[in-house]
Amino acid sequence: MTYNIGVDINGSDNGPKTIIDGALAAINLNEDIIVTFFGDEKEIKDYLSDRYDKKRIRIVHAPDVISNYDSPTEAVRQKKESSVVKAMEYLAAKDADAVVSAGSTGAVLTAATLIARRIPGVKRPALAPIFPTIKGPMLLIDCGANNDCRPEFLEQFAVMGSLYMKHLFCIDNPRVALINNGAEPGKGNALTKEAYKLIEKLPINFVGNIEPRYILDGNADVAVCDGFIGNMVLKTTEGVAKTLFTIMKKEFTSSFKTKMGALLLKSSLKNIKSMLDYTEHGGAILLGINGGVIKGHGSSDPKSIQICVTQARDFAKSGIINDIKQDLADIK
Amino acid sequence: MTYNIGVDINGSDNGPKTIIDGALAAINLNEDIIVTFFGDEKEIKDYLSDRYDKKRIRIVHAPDVISNYDSPTEAVRQKKESSVVKAMEYLAAKDADAVVSAGSTGAVLTAATLIARRIPGVKRPALAPIFPTIKGPMLLIDCGANNDCRPEFLEQFAVMGSLYMKHLFCIDNPRVALINNGAEPGKGNALTKEAYKLIEKLPINFVGNIEPRYILDGNADVAVCDGFIGNMVLKTTEGVAKTLFTIMKKEFTSSFKTKMGALLLKSSLKNIKSMLDYTEHGGAILLGINGGVIKGHGSSDPKSIQICVTQARDFAKSGIINDIKQDLADIK
Repeated sequence: MTYNIGVDINGSDNGPKTIIDGALAAINLNEDIIVTFFGDEKEIKDYLSDRYDKKRIRIVHAPDVISNYDSPTEAVRQKKESSVVKAMEYLAAKDADAVVSAGSTGAVLTAATLIARRIPGVKRPALAPIFPTIKGPMLLIDCGANNDCRPEFLEQFAVMGSLYMKHLFCIDNPRVALINNGAEPGKGNALTKEAYKLIEKLPINFVGNIEPRYILDGNADVAVCDGFIGNMVLKTTEGVAKTLFTIMKKEFTSSFKTKMGALLLKSSLKNIKSMLDYTEHGGAILLGINGGVIKGHGSSDPKSIQICVTQARDFAKSGIINDIKQDLADIK
Repeated sequence: MTYNIGVDINGSDNGPKTIIDGALAAINLNEDIIVTFFGDEKEIKDYLSDRYDKKRIRIVHAPDVISNYDSPTEAVRQKKESSVVKAMEYLAAKDADAVVSAGSTGAVLTAATLIARRIPGVKRPALAPIFPTIKGPMLLIDCGANNDCRPEFLEQFAVMGSLYMKHLFCIDNPRVALINNGAEPGKGNALTKEAYKLIEKLPINFVGNIEPRYILDGNADVAVCDGFIGNMVLKTTEGVAKTLFTIMKKEFTSSFKTKMGALLLKSSLKNIKSMLDYTEHGGAILLGINGGVIKGHGSSDPKSIQICVTQARDFAKSGIINDIKQDLADIK
């Protein structure tokens, strides 16, 4: 059986070639993947040139581009020929098994919700990246799709996140935690207090609150929060890591002695940087959409696009959508 | 003129001796500081022994202790002889010019609000620590006093934070930013969108939204947010820094080569760690209380308590309370 992954060639800071290269790497490494590129047909054909294997590559002409500067809702409604809109139409029609886009988060979200639509029973789709911890990958859900949440949204995120880690990471009974400002059950703001009460009743492995201080320790497989908080936690982590490496670089190049020291630690420093780089863990999954939608990072390189494409294949293969439908119906 | 700083001897993970030592260092270094210790009288006297200079040290017997395990409101109401309650009584009666406590945040907040009370016009007091950035100190307000905020609370935090950085850090026109999930004015959740509209009308130097990714870059002197978000940002920063140092230690001691490298970088690594250690920047100020209340970190060492005591003196000296009263009245 093969999986047909729709790939939006637009949205990468590094240009369409990066995305095409990444997708080609994915089909070369995985016999069960075929790819449908969405973008300017001539541009794609010219770049593919003799690598255009028609058995495994389809091209859908979609000349329009939605950028980060467009208003997502307007752009999705008006730019019918944009790569992200076309890709979602194929997903909705089951002409693609899953879609990868590194485009504007707002546009991907809006196009997915308006065109591919939600799984029946899902109140809000959530954007969920994999967050690296010292013990392995953790799903952070939601991370920006919903800035204002009701407790029932977080309840559903817990169910969907648990199913994702079970299906995609083969974790038997994923540990689901609620991001909060204290470990004890009564802690939190109005939202997390209510969400706690709903989540603890779910038939999942709820391990209670997790404080962001301990988030990298790897004591949860799924961390649930509203999209605003998720964005804060993710972006603070990124910022602190980036700043630390900047300071280190400055300190480590300040004298001959420190330069020698840094040289001896070169591979160690590379390991640490790579451990914290969440783009190496693929894209963010848009959970709750009636089809697999993987949002790649804008700064993706071919390697991370390749990972996104295999992640999309794994999602399509998993049957998770039926499980989400079933499990959400059970808790209603 | 001398300033009488009330010091709660309880609450430090390292015991009362740490706090007493820190306060003694402060009076030894600053002629204008005298200290009133609140705690078990015998314990204080025994430990002070021949360092008990009655001209500059007063002792108020307050044998009860409120711990992190007590419910703040109940404990403050019932434990009338606790060190934190007694200290706030002295502050309310102007028998202390400002108070330092490293005790339970909830108890300090509750005792301050119930006993020393708010500045007239203040809707909610806010807990504001100094956050280290690569360009210098930044005030993070609120950081845990108010988990659920209305936009008007954030508006007041912006005013109070700006005044604090002006008075205490001699910054002429402090740059005040709103922590948000995007730089553009329309970004955010319901709270930050509304707060933006209020803050931009204030007669302060509002520089717009700041994303947590750039929070350590030092482009703001005051970062405004609700207490839940502030807690997330502060604790994520702490957690990432701690985890990074743990990983570095592991990586750097993995072979003879890396151990040599780490040895050459020893002082650089120490500099970096110290730059990120916000306990070196004193305690968190409880802004909006009718008197200076400095909340020291539970893990404070004598040095950080010494800084808290001078910070309390600076607060008492500054006349900021009148300015807060005036400026909040102006925006009503």
